[in-house]
Amino acid sequence: MAQKPKLLHSHIIASSRLFTVESMDLEFSNGEQRTYERLVPGGAGAVMMVAINAHQEVMLIKEYGAGIEDYTVTLPKGAVDLGESLSEAANRELKEEIGFGAREITHLKQMSLSPSYMKSGIDVMVALDLYPEQLEGDEPEPLEVLTWPLADIESLVCRTDFTEGRAIAALFMARDWYLKQAI
Amino acid sequence: MAQKPKLLHSHIIASSRLFTVESMDLEFSNGEQRTYERLVPGGAGAVMMVAINAHQEVMLIKEYGAGIEDYTVTLPKGAVDLGESLSEAANRELKEEIGFGAREITHLKQMSLSPSYMKSGIDVMVALDLYPEQLEGDEPEPLEVLTWPLADIESLVCRTDFTEGRAIAALFMARDWYLKQAI
Repeated sequence: MAQKPKLLHSHIIASSRLFTVESMDLEFSNGEQRTYERLVPGGAGAVMMVAINAHQEVMLIKEYGAGIEDYTVTLPKGAVDLGESLSEAANRELKEEIGFGAREITHLKQMSLSPSYMKSGIDVMVALDLYPEQLEGDEPEPLEVLTWPLADIESLVCRTDFTEGRAIAALFMARDWYLKQAI
Repeated sequence: MAQKPKLLHSHIIASSRLFTVESMDLEFSNGEQRTYERLVPGGAGAVMMVAINAHQEVMLIKEYGAGIEDYTVTLPKGAVDLGESLSEAANRELKEEIGFGAREITHLKQMSLSPSYMKSGIDVMVALDLYPEQLEGDEPEPLEVLTWPLADIESLVCRTDFTEGRAIAALFMARDWYLKQAI
């Protein structure tokens, strides 16, 4: 594997309330120079939760996605607040989004969103041993909460309103992990 | 399910060579008003390919990801050129990135990247019946091509240099699809 490219220069070229674009001049080990652009996130990271109830069903939310201008079914997720651990963030977001906390939270994998263009990562957490507890979230309207049998995520993935790549990845990883735990 | 929010107003608030940020004022059906920001992509879409060779191995690439400032293993992917079909784009990108074309290309799923904040989608294509053909790409350095047994993607997903959520999702979906075809 080649040596990592040298970062010759970088600076912020555009920003808004949510997005910051950085330009990076890179020199590869073969001498080739290129200018890249990437999104750099603010904040302390993000978590996505596969919460599994006692009936071996996954907890899903249906919410409006402004990016795709449509309602979409996906996994609960959210930003990690400063000073929070990943497990604390996962538990808080679960209480806000599906009205349950979890007594057992396991870190599965840190995923990247788009390694070429975005610095952002998201940590996938499996949440088990759920108990009802609701925290106030900041959603503009109540989220619809759905459940889906973990054993049948293939049919969930076929739904045209279930499209988020990260959520599909998290579900498959969590299913494999869960089945191994059960053995 | 609630009626979709009304888009009261939208405009471009930041842009660079690669990124365009749009601000959207939305009114939800309960009267709640919010301002969202999303990334709107240029171009004609993108494809991600699960190319499977005669040994039932998946073709992977190792490339530098400027977003995460590190080398990463992932699936071949790329932008659809104007006027190209998804299959044509998939075949061209395979020739550029792994040095193979495919006689059989099947569309599996359109995925979203981040439904809340990005309009972008990517189409997952399974490519079979591969034949060697190299096209010149625009990479700054040659990509390293790897193969991995389709039957063992769990161990690939455990690698810390294999992190892209969309690629993990595409691999699991393609494996399930392939196993069903084989029956």
